[in-house]
Amino acid sequence: SAASGDSHCATNGVPIVRNISELDQDSYGRPGLSHITIAGSIMHGFKEVEVWLQTFAPGAHTPIHRHSCEEIFVVMKGSGTLYLASNSHKKYPGNPQEFPVFANSTFHVPVNDAHQVWNTNGHEDLQLLVIISRPPVKVFIYDDWNVPHTAAKLKFPYYWDERCYQTSPTKDEL
Amino acid sequence: SAASGDSHCATNGVPIVRNISELDQDSYGRPGLSHITIAGSIMHGFKEVEVWLQTFAPGAHTPIHRHSCEEIFVVMKGSGTLYLASNSHKKYPGNPQEFPVFANSTFHVPVNDAHQVWNTNGHEDLQLLVIISRPPVKVFIYDDWNVPHTAAKLKFPYYWDERCYQTSPTKDEL
Ligand SMILES: [Zn+2]
Ligand SMILES: [Zn+2]
Repeated sequence: SAASGDSHCATNGVPIVRNISELDQDSYGRPGLSHITIAGSIMHGFKEVEVWLQTFAPGAHTPIHRHSCEEIFVVMKGSGTLYLASNSHKKYPGNPQEFPVFANSTFHVPVNDAHQVWNTNGHEDLQLLVIISRPPVKVFIYDDWNVPHTAAKLKFPYYWDERCYQTSPTKDEL
Repeated sequence: SAASGDSHCATNGVPIVRNISELDQDSYGRPGLSHITIAGSIMHGFKEVEVWLQTFAPGAHTPIHRHSCEEIFVVMKGSGTLYLASNSHKKYPGNPQEFPVFANSTFHVPVNDAHQVWNTNGHEDLQLLVIISRPPVKVFIYDDWNVPHTAAKLKFPYYWDERCYQTSPTKDEL
């Protein structure tokens, strides 16, 4: 299959030790983002957890989104803001709470809460280690905070999973 | 219960953002170890992943052990050695392979393989971010590499889970 020719997609397993600075790094079409899948499900064959290293340039941000997995962040560098709408009883996220995040902090997103991470620091990159459960991630995207939960759009596979998903032999199992 | 009086055990949930330098840090009786549970199952109520920050002084190490969860490491500082016995077809681990690990590397341990992490660098601390799936971790410990797999001893709850496990209301579910 095409997978075997694409070094990006190590569906037959990965070396035990890898140098993170030699791993694939890409914006995956998102302005100001640098994403590295340190340990991936579709990309590397991990089944229960996935680990990303993401760097957001000043002003860069995630979409407003939700997912039903656990998500834990460790802030490696910089600072920013987590916007979190916990009012899951409403029909739409509504105004989110703002949580400042900073180097050497950890934060998490409760399962299914709509959220967005911004680098709101004008001067420094925001670097995050991101851990999610139950990969591959199934992300529902909101165009704004007033979009009804039922109208959020599933993006699957997600940006960095697309390339390997198209060629993955596990596709039929998902 | 005693849990409500122990700030270490946040069984009712944790704040969304926490300063890692303010989290509990302890050796849990293991020489040369500093362990912080950044996101814990028994300690904080996460259900699917757990994240630790561990610092090993020169010469400090984990026991030889195995577990059936996925385990992914990110080396934050220092260097060391992963000893890994992949011969799971044998009756005992036998001589492990040695893998040098270094700052800004990632490594993982295949499910159920016996392994041990050492700070084999005489001059620097080895700091690791550790991610495991399916918490709380169930660890089988080997006194040496020639102990039969069937004679490895289950240590549950593990060192840093003991304090909250004794007082946790979820004890009966495990
Ligand atoms: Zn998210
Ligand atoms: Zn282990």
